[in-house]
Amino acid sequence: MGVILHDLAVQDDVRLSPYCWRARFALEHKGLSYRTAATCFTGIASIADGKQKTVPVLEDGGRVVGDSWAIANYLEDTYPERPSLFGGEVGRAHALFLQNWVTTAVLRPSLKALVLDVYGSVQPQDRDYFRTSREQRFGMTLEEIAAGPQEERVAVVRTALEPLRLQLKEQPFLSGGNPMYADYVVAGTFMWWRGITRAQLLTREDPLTPWMERMLALYPAIAKESRRLWDGP
Amino acid sequence: MGVILHDLAVQDDVRLSPYCWRARFALEHKGLSYRTAATCFTGIASIADGKQKTVPVLEDGGRVVGDSWAIANYLEDTYPERPSLFGGEVGRAHALFLQNWVTTAVLRPSLKALVLDVYGSVQPQDRDYFRTSREQRFGMTLEEIAAGPQEERVAVVRTALEPLRLQLKEQPFLSGGNPMYADYVVAGTFMWWRGITRAQLLTREDPLTPWMERMLALYPAIAKESRRLWDGP
Repeated sequence: MGVILHDLAVQDDVRLSPYCWRARFALEHKGLSYRTAATCFTGIASIADGKQKTVPVLEDGGRVVGDSWAIANYLEDTYPERPSLFGGEVGRAHALFLQNWVTTAVLRPSLKALVLDVYGSVQPQDRDYFRTSREQRFGMTLEEIAAGPQEERVAVVRTALEPLRLQLKEQPFLSGGNPMYADYVVAGTFMWWRGITRAQLLTREDPLTPWMERMLALYPAIAKESRRLWDGP
Repeated sequence: MGVILHDLAVQDDVRLSPYCWRARFALEHKGLSYRTAATCFTGIASIADGKQKTVPVLEDGGRVVGDSWAIANYLEDTYPERPSLFGGEVGRAHALFLQNWVTTAVLRPSLKALVLDVYGSVQPQDRDYFRTSREQRFGMTLEEIAAGPQEERVAVVRTALEPLRLQLKEQPFLSGGNPMYADYVVAGTFMWWRGITRAQLLTREDPLTPWMERMLALYPAIAKESRRLWDGP
């Protein structure tokens, strides 16, 4: 039956989740043949073995793997003969650190910047779930999370990306001469922005823009998706 | 004549610079025999070839290498038969990213937290230089940089360290099973705090505290220095 990636979709079948995009990039990097299966927030409980609470979920033959970091490690360890996602033990630590940094420094302020865009895009059956779960997590309403002008909340994220810009002064990809999972962790976040908002995170002058263009040029199957709202690279 | 590391000293011969500590850790990691030569801010221009503007500066035979990142790369490439500081190309990218992240997320708020401690510790001939150069860099007086209770400025740094704590949930060192240069970049910053202030950055409960203790246990030559103000690990 081949590899299946269960992936979050909002309206118009736009694939949204930064975590799912990490898994998409990882599958492309490994050159595995796969198909995606769209789900929505409230459909996650029906995936595969019925035990999953988040997406992405990977099905490979009889195996079910949830969590994007577990999926990356599963792919690396199960298909060692294919291009490495990490480039060794320290490379795996590099990917893990980028992930930890993105979690704290990029995803949190991004959600503040985008929460109303996401709320406006989720499928009708997900609206109540999305509002309730996010309001619980933040301890305030969606409208309170999104207080202040969006451009100011976007600027916070833009500033937080500074270590990436310093990295790309020295080398073409975050992992060195070639992209690896550390790059995909960041690119997955930008794919989320790309699919969901007209707010421009990466300006034309941003050194991250040509990097994202190089990433998309390498993976046309990913580049062709989610252009609905995207004017930039 | 062996390897000489020119290293910044403040009063009581306390070695202060987070950048110099990186080079110290790197030399220890490589197991090279070396001695340090203390300098002060206004003494840097007299080091070696007279062309240096910052410390650390490494002298190895006839070669003079300035800048901590250049020194790490020099040591890695010149002594490849000794334990690797990076663990390959992606490992080098890992160390570089930690460095870039420390620069933007840790060193800047640390200087705000510590600037008056540093000013009070520099050698008498450095006081005017330190005040003028830092006030120029920040566009305000030292006292304005240090506005507000120090504990609040320390708390900002403590919060910024969160990605490190997530990393250490998964593995004993930032680089994986063993410490490498990425670990030293962070430890060098904590050595700076250790030598200069009574303000406690790492509490007993902080998961970073046992990590720092493991680092110091591995390098007793470093651990025995700069304990002047240190009550913690």
